[in-house]
Amino acid sequence: MTKLTPKTRDQLKTVSTATLTTCLFKRGLRNQFLQDVHPLNPAAGPMVGEAYTLRYIPAREDLNPITVFQDRSHPQRKAVEECPPGAVLVIDSRKDARAASAGGILVTRLMKRGVAGIVTDGSFRDSPEIAGLAIPAYHHRPSAPTNLTRHQAIDINVPIGCADVAVFPDDVMVGDAEGVVVIPAHLADEVAAEAVEMTVFEDFVTERVLQGRSILGLYPATEEQTRADFAAWRKAKGR
Amino acid sequence: MTKLTPKTRDQLKTVSTATLTTCLFKRGLRNQFLQDVHPLNPAAGPMVGEAYTLRYIPAREDLNPITVFQDRSHPQRKAVEECPPGAVLVIDSRKDARAASAGGILVTRLMKRGVAGIVTDGSFRDSPEIAGLAIPAYHHRPSAPTNLTRHQAIDINVPIGCADVAVFPDDVMVGDAEGVVVIPAHLADEVAAEAVEMTVFEDFVTERVLQGRSILGLYPATEEQTRADFAAWRKAKGR
Amino acid sequence: MTKLTPKTRDQLKTVSTATLTTCLFKRGLRNQFLQDVHPLNPAAGPMVGEAYTLRYIPAREDLNPITVFQDRSHPQRKAVEECPPGAVLVIDSRKDARAASAGGILVTRLMKRGVAGIVTDGSFRDSPEIAGLAIPAYHHRPSAPTNLTRHQAIDINVPIGCADVAVFPDDVMVGDAEGVVVIPAHLADEVAAEAVEMTVFEDFVTERVLQGRSILGLYPATEEQTRADFAAWRKAKGR
Amino acid sequence: MTKLTPKTRDQLKTVSTATLTTCLFKRGLRNQFLQDVHPLNPAAGPMVGEAYTLRYIPAREDLNPITVFQDRSHPQRKAVEECPPGAVLVIDSRKDARAASAGGILVTRLMKRGVAGIVTDGSFRDSPEIAGLAIPAYHHRPSAPTNLTRHQAIDINVPIGCADVAVFPDDVMVGDAEGVVVIPAHLADEVAAEAVEMTVFEDFVTERVLQGRSILGLYPATEEQTRADFAAWRKAKGR
Amino acid sequence: MTKLTPKTRDQLKTVSTATLTTCLFKRGLRNQFLQDVHPLNPAAGPMVGEAYTLRYIPAREDLNPITVFQDRSHPQRKAVEECPPGAVLVIDSRKDARAASAGGILVTRLMKRGVAGIVTDGSFRDSPEIAGLAIPAYHHRPSAPTNLTRHQAIDINVPIGCADVAVFPDDVMVGDAEGVVVIPAHLADEVAAEAVEMTVFEDFVTERVLQGRSILGLYPATEEQTRADFAAWRKAKGR
Amino acid sequence: MTKLTPKTRDQLKTVSTATLTTCLFKRGLRNQFLQDVHPLNPAAGPMVGEAYTLRYIPAREDLNPITVFQDRSHPQRKAVEECPPGAVLVIDSRKDARAASAGGILVTRLMKRGVAGIVTDGSFRDSPEIAGLAIPAYHHRPSAPTNLTRHQAIDINVPIGCADVAVFPDDVMVGDAEGVVVIPAHLADEVAAEAVEMTVFEDFVTERVLQGRSILGLYPATEEQTRADFAAWRKAKGR
Repeated sequence: MTKLTPKTRDQLKTVSTATLTTCLFKRGLRNQFLQDVHPLNPAAGPMVGEAYTLRYIPAREDLNPITVFQDRSHPQRKAVEECPPGAVLVIDSRKDARAASAGGILVTRLMKRGVAGIVTDGSFRDSPEIAGLAIPAYHHRPSAPTNLTRHQAIDINVPIGCADVAVFPDDVMVGDAEGVVVIPAHLADEVAAEAVEMTVFEDFVTERVLQGRSILGLYPATEEQTRADFAAWRKAKGR
Repeated sequence: MTKLTPKTRDQLKTVSTATLTTCLFKRGLRNQFLQDVHPLNPAAGPMVGEAYTLRYIPAREDLNPITVFQDRSHPQRKAVEECPPGAVLVIDSRKDARAASAGGILVTRLMKRGVAGIVTDGSFRDSPEIAGLAIPAYHHRPSAPTNLTRHQAIDINVPIGCADVAVFPDDVMVGDAEGVVVIPAHLADEVAAEAVEMTVFEDFVTERVLQGRSILGLYPATEEQTRADFAAWRKAKGR
Repeated sequence: MTKLTPKTRDQLKTVSTATLTTCLFKRGLRNQFLQDVHPLNPAAGPMVGEAYTLRYIPAREDLNPITVFQDRSHPQRKAVEECPPGAVLVIDSRKDARAASAGGILVTRLMKRGVAGIVTDGSFRDSPEIAGLAIPAYHHRPSAPTNLTRHQAIDINVPIGCADVAVFPDDVMVGDAEGVVVIPAHLADEVAAEAVEMTVFEDFVTERVLQGRSILGLYPATEEQTRADFAAWRKAKGR
Repeated sequence: MTKLTPKTRDQLKTVSTATLTTCLFKRGLRNQFLQDVHPLNPAAGPMVGEAYTLRYIPAREDLNPITVFQDRSHPQRKAVEECPPGAVLVIDSRKDARAASAGGILVTRLMKRGVAGIVTDGSFRDSPEIAGLAIPAYHHRPSAPTNLTRHQAIDINVPIGCADVAVFPDDVMVGDAEGVVVIPAHLADEVAAEAVEMTVFEDFVTERVLQGRSILGLYPATEEQTRADFAAWRKAKGR
Repeated sequence: MTKLTPKTRDQLKTVSTATLTTCLFKRGLRNQFLQDVHPLNPAAGPMVGEAYTLRYIPAREDLNPITVFQDRSHPQRKAVEECPPGAVLVIDSRKDARAASAGGILVTRLMKRGVAGIVTDGSFRDSPEIAGLAIPAYHHRPSAPTNLTRHQAIDINVPIGCADVAVFPDDVMVGDAEGVVVIPAHLADEVAAEAVEMTVFEDFVTERVLQGRSILGLYPATEEQTRADFAAWRKAKGR
Repeated sequence: MTKLTPKTRDQLKTVSTATLTTCLFKRGLRNQFLQDVHPLNPAAGPMVGEAYTLRYIPAREDLNPITVFQDRSHPQRKAVEECPPGAVLVIDSRKDARAASAGGILVTRLMKRGVAGIVTDGSFRDSPEIAGLAIPAYHHRPSAPTNLTRHQAIDINVPIGCADVAVFPDDVMVGDAEGVVVIPAHLADEVAAEAVEMTVFEDFVTERVLQGRSILGLYPATEEQTRADFAAWRKAKGR
């Protein structure tokens, strides 16, 4: 029911994370942007999808030898095979970027499976390779060491923190070249609709500013003339 | 089965966290000490108990009004009432000390219930009051804001990270005036026994050093004479 | 008009910063506690007073030789002589603790002048001496270098940031052994009154918890019986 | 009088921030480079202009609803409309990058008004758009949330700190692909002239090093032969 | 004897730092990747060479005027002239990026001398110029101030820490577009050989994943079929 | 020759680190105070002695098993036995406090040998025990893990960095309850003499301030009357 509709998904692909954070701010949500998490491949296009989460805890040496991945039910591998197409795999790496949350082969597998993106508040390894893949990927910075060095995958699809933001399964993750915002599931439709409207207005404003117009009275539209101009512009543009 | 025996509990009360980290280091475990977590009330005596964990995620404003505590099943309140006597309540606050993980009334309730201690990698509020209670409490630093400002309690008794250390339910938490160490449950008995032995030797060494003896050949006991002296001392002391 | 009344001042001396942050949280103010700012002399008693601010910028070497203090109108010295008795001198040191915001002689002068306290988000020098003075003083940590090393005092009694909190002149600063909270001037009276009421209830709760009562239904008082007990207790105590 | 002359402005466009910091270091100024502040659009060319400053303090929630921008005299909007053409808008964001100091529309307006650049020690939102504008922009990292989330603009054209450097109105801001340096207003002419001279010499040195010459005796020019070679080279090059 | 053989050097140029950290992890070495050190010029190709180290301590003002470089035996200049061709100059800058560890002219000289690369856990100045040179260079971030501002070169070719990793002279430094890994000298040959083997397998896995194969049973190769497929693929590819 | 004279040693025991940093600031030395390094046992009295240094690098696992201390020439143990009486052992722990730089037994040995103090920019273990010893000890914070976890002692009595300050062997380390300052060896006598004079004046100022005198004209002594009063006071006090 809270699952993302095709309409909302399409709308969210046309708006910026900046615009979305303003919509959320208006609703009292001030802390939905993942701080200091960056795209590896901004050209891979906007990322939109429901959160499918993976939780890491610190690695204890005796529990994390290289052999753990022989277990087909290891949560990291399981998450990579089970994250639904269209969803975004979001990893709580406790902001510890000293070892990779995942690497090129796993991200490639997610891409092939139709997953909409991958996000960690830690690091990826094989980052030069990931930067060339056609799946949006977001992390703090590159780090080569295997995740076993610092991380143990422990839980799938539970509420997590990621980069100091609460992420609940099925919250809507939206990423652009600036970063990633988390939209609570129940707000996705209304926020998407409002953000589309705001984007129309901001496009109008940008055009006027490029023509030399002052921002006073224009942005926000406190002057009657601005509102009239916008209505006319909108009609002319068919938006 | 991995539950702490009375013997091991008693032994662990007589050894330091420094000695315990060395025992764990010898077993390849280098990362069991909670970094930058400090006692509020070091006089409350050593803390020993099995970990009973509480996991926090970042607070989302709409989910964390002041009224949430009217719910008797709120995980923070539930944890305070259900943490077993003799256990230690360990809170994963994601090292975010900007709001309190708990305050004086809850810690007092834990004390009355016979809980062995409370640990967070965040903050406590009412810290001056907690500093006077007869239950060991460990945090990063004081912070007055209610936990709702930054934290949402979400899970009870799952594996967590605390101050960059993995903590599994029933791991053994030991705290002294220096800080807190986590002993994996299956190692508690052997580590306790070894630490007691090491402590006897270190007491001997300290006595000799205070008498003016060089540490070379003494610590570690690479000289035959040291080993003979120690054997004699031990016999004389009945340890 | 927004100046602190004697009644409010007295009330604020009897409540904790923890209680005050909860009152402010209920009003949507989540960020009024000075993070990581600590008392040097918690025994100096509670601190209550209107903010009188001093703003520092980074020191440029050529503008900050040792001779600048020969200028009687140097803002730091001027602030020390002009901060009103009963007010609190609050310094924006940009959270840079590598040089002192002030030292023992200036703090002594403030004490003699009847100033209610001094707060910086940086450091004090002569901290062992300040720790023995009868004026509450709060800082991040001790640091011996003269403020000229890192700071230039530039403005008096303008709005500032201190430890990531907005402080406007005449906001009410309250400090206890835990730290410092900033109450917006226009809320001081109502917050003080509410905090006094909350403190009465928390004292009742603490007493009951010490008697062995569970917190469920007690804190918050969701049970009718709790409310009746509290009413009776209050009457008996005359509070 | 201390305003930037066209000659100095032109000279500063031809030298690097590295060379300028050395000129300043020779004058005892060790702390004039903005630490960890980076260009969004290095191709927008060198930035040179007098500082026009904007000071932010932490946002208090009740003072910073989305409606504040309806006020035409809001300091952020006022600064954007009043920063002189040829000047650089420098924002003291207290190194808090968790919310944007400004966004694409405001930066576009500055560009249209002929402002020489914009600098913050925080973040910009709409960073992908700003990266394509023909006005130099420098920040710490991208961050989407509106500035109201964390910042309140409070003062225009007062001395500020930016990235731990003192910036006085009319100090000369110079930016290249490496970052931004602040030249005290009264030193601008002499530093510009000296930096041009140093650049000539460094170009000579680089040419010689590319030809295989050792740096010993060359850089610095401690050998008589080097000085003779340089004089000849300079003459030949007409510099 | 532990010097890098041409075969090992060539092998190391064909494998990633991610693969190498896994080989080292299998040998119990968890901490060989330089954290938060990034390539300026990833297109300059892989970096492989023995470590030749340079140790910096904090600069004391009286010992570090601009004239110190007139001394031909200044350790920084000496290191630049004496670092062997094929080696990598590794600088311990104590992770202090507030001043440059080196600049464009020195890095150019290293390039001309046939040095294999330069690494610092601090900063470079003239970073835009270095980014265009044909020698791999790795640092934390750009910073324009001369190294005299913060650093004094003190020792050549002693064991150092760099970005929290131990680096001994003649350890093998390998860098790619992700970062830099340190291989203890005595392990270089065996780790290189193993990494080449791992890379063959990972290339096979990547190909299969791109064809739609699940990672379960494939990576790691726990299924008999995978091992057979790989043997056949290897034969076919002649690797 | 630069060794500390008994007179200078005695003088330095009577002045504060705050006063000393001002003397050094007047000589252009702005960075001689160890930042964020704190006394464990402030009651152990002032610390004065020549620096005897010990340099740590990050621990590589294979080089740092528990058995390394069986080597009598291990630099840490050697330093503890060879640091001269009256000197201060200063350890460069690269500000890494995650493992101990030393523990109770070694510090006890130093005390017995007449060493004047021990300083690290990392941690001590057995900190509660060290807090009770009669030898000044300074560190960042307590940490229980053995130094082998993070540190390898590598060099004795070479120039080091400690808490971002350059420390050369035989520099004079002075510690009080506030922290530690490093006086370059060649300045020790003159700085000690000047600090003693400054202290006399500051004692006079403090007395006057406690009597209610304004600081204007008094501190600094810009009024003729102040200078006359001070001369009279000095005479009367026989200082």
